Amino acid sequence: MTQEVQTPRSSASNARGNARPLPERPGNGSPLGLHRVLDRERRLPQAAERLDNTLPIWSNEILIDVERLNIDAASFVQMERETGHDRAKISAIVLRNLEERGKQQNRITGSGGMLVGRVRQVGSKYRGPLKVRVGDRIATLVSLTLTPLALAEIRAVHLEKHQLDVSGHAVLFETGIAAKLPDFLPEPVAMALFDVAGAPATVDAMVKAGQRVVVLGGGGKAGTLCCVAARRKAGKKGKVIAIEPSARAAEDLERLGCCDAVLQIDARDPVAVQAAVEAATRGKMGDVVINVASVPDTETSALLSVHGKGQVLFFGMATSFTKVALGAEGIGCGAKLLFGNGYYRGHDRFSVELLRKNRALRELFCRRYG
Amino acid sequence: MTQEVQTPRSSASNARGNARPLPERPGNGSPLGLHRVLDRERRLPQAAERLDNTLPIWSNEILIDVERLNIDAASFVQMERETGHDRAKISAIVLRNLEERGKQQNRITGSGGMLVGRVRQVGSKYRGPLKVRVGDRIATLVSLTLTPLALAEIRAVHLEKHQLDVSGHAVLFETGIAAKLPDFLPEPVAMALFDVAGAPATVDAMVKAGQRVVVLGGGGKAGTLCCVAARRKAGKKGKVIAIEPSARAAEDLERLGCCDAVLQIDARDPVAVQAAVEAATRGKMGDVVINVASVPDTETSALLSVHGKGQVLFFGMATSFTKVALGAEGIGCGAKLLFGNGYYRGHDRFSVELLRKNRALRELFCRRYG
Repeated sequence: MTQEVQTPRSSASNARGNARPLPERPGNGSPLGLHRVLDRERRLPQAAERLDNTLPIWSNEILIDVERLNIDAASFVQMERETGHDRAKISAIVLRNLEERGKQQNRITGSGGMLVGRVRQVGSKYRGPLKVRVGDRIATLVSLTLTPLALAEIRAVHLEKHQLDVSGHAVLFETGIAAKLPDFLPEPVAMALFDVAGAPATVDAMVKAGQRVVVLGGGGKAGTLCCVAARRKAGKKGKVIAIEPSARAAEDLERLGCCDAVLQIDARDPVAVQAAVEAATRGKMGDVVINVASVPDTETSALLSVHGKGQVLFFGMATSFTKVALGAEGIGCGAKLLFGNGYYRGHDRFSVELLRKNRALRELFCRRYG
Repeated sequence: MTQEVQTPRSSASNARGNARPLPERPGNGSPLGLHRVLDRERRLPQAAERLDNTLPIWSNEILIDVERLNIDAASFVQMERETGHDRAKISAIVLRNLEERGKQQNRITGSGGMLVGRVRQVGSKYRGPLKVRVGDRIATLVSLTLTPLALAEIRAVHLEKHQLDVSGHAVLFETGIAAKLPDFLPEPVAMALFDVAGAPATVDAMVKAGQRVVVLGGGGKAGTLCCVAARRKAGKKGKVIAIEPSARAAEDLERLGCCDAVLQIDARDPVAVQAAVEAATRGKMGDVVINVASVPDTETSALLSVHGKGQVLFFGMATSFTKVALGAEGIGCGAKLLFGNGYYRGHDRFSVELLRKNRALRELFCRRYG
């Protein structure tokens, strides 16, 4: 389970900031990481067959000592099936990927995952969005499919968690994003939080005082955070209405006290959703509608919950572009329709603060995802 | 090729507005047309198996004398294959659809098309967005998949145009949209225009004076209109940059004189697109990026053409939701990402005016689509 990897000597002294700096290659790399693409054709790192995962870093990159890989569920399940749930064989697949491609991208599913580690070096010319220092424990928020990665060892494979304990290094480009792991939250809770952190941060930026906000899938991971974020901005004169099919999740959400109404309805039933939102808003409908439902075919319900000058934000990965675009045309929905964007400056800090300030929310997340 | 259909007597006298009004059913129907869904389960008309296509209309509907069906390309090609390009058999499929379902929705492709006809009756309680009068020739802009339709006759099947000449009636719900056919444009040109009219109208609403606008697929049908619309709003201090792979389309666009640069690049090459937009904007990138490219895999190019506080509008039906959402995260794109929406109040009038005022544009459209 080991692989020869050229890594600099242990950087414990660097973490304390009192040793001489690690070497860098002269000059900046491309902020997108094009300089590490080894394919003959010009491609972005995610589309590339092979990345350069060697050291030292370019002067605008960040070097991470990697501790753990969180493999994407689709990818991990594929490897389990292929190997008959054999830990050693799963490790061998990952190491072969790294040797052949310089990144952990599943050949069959195309997907990656994220990693947890400690910042070892911040390039002297790094001008990216991250405010991290050497020694910080972080989780990357960009996919492993575009992250140069080299492992010296895979120490353990956790089948149930889809995680690998490892030693090695990874490189973050200048456009890459990562989040500092907060000290007051268990790591799995923080990871669950970062996975959806873009949604509540976007809600915070969109919602204005006094507005009516409808959240489809309001009792889920992203949904709960969106409801709390919406309440803060909409204020007492606003309304927060959640649509949530699961009785248990609806009850959890009710108990947080952030919603004016938690409606237990299947978001795939547009007629029921429209009628319920109509009743809850006295026919005015939502100013802002957030769709974080995790199942397909909820687009029309979102479109029917907003008024003609409102906005709908689609954050669920089950969203279909054509169902939104053609659906809006079919029902005469004039609202502004927005893509959810996982990249939102400061979204990790925003969501960590939400949990820090709201004890009930924190306890719910620790219970569910801890 | 005929089917027994109960239709009111010829309404020539009604068109002149001097006859007694046609009958209505008492009370309003649902603006979405739920009252005409005959399925046991509650569904929207588009998702329904069967619609009520009978007369008289409800008091908030519009009745149309149908002259022609423009069948969706995917649907028409499927029927051609199934029947070996047999006109009579294609007619029989359409008539059977109408008998069984009350609407023209292809059983295999699920798609419909649009229709051309003349307004015969506007319900006395109609409060929808259309400003039409009895006698107006219109094209519906909502899909046939949600339009109650009954045909007395199919007079001709035009294989090359994917059109059927027919007699019969159709019903437009209160949320439905349609466009008046302008007298100064040939019908096929007007239809080509209405097909993409939402795009330039949205561009007109989004772009501000002095902004840099990038249009991917700028030489196509929607793209050309978007470039012209962008120029009007961006003004002399703004910039309009088109990306267009076809030499001929690029030349046509150049000749219109609305672009500062027409870059002959394949929008599927994100690295090339980014470099070209960077050069054309001196590194500032686009304030507004419009993606109307008709091929898949152009999402990343659009995301790489905008600056961090800009906006990207995706109008191409080949857009993938996940490629946009995950792509933005992967390259650290903080821009606002919008769905194109075919429903835009007054978009038909806006695009007709564009062609009326711009002779070179009108001539280009007549040459290409006439």
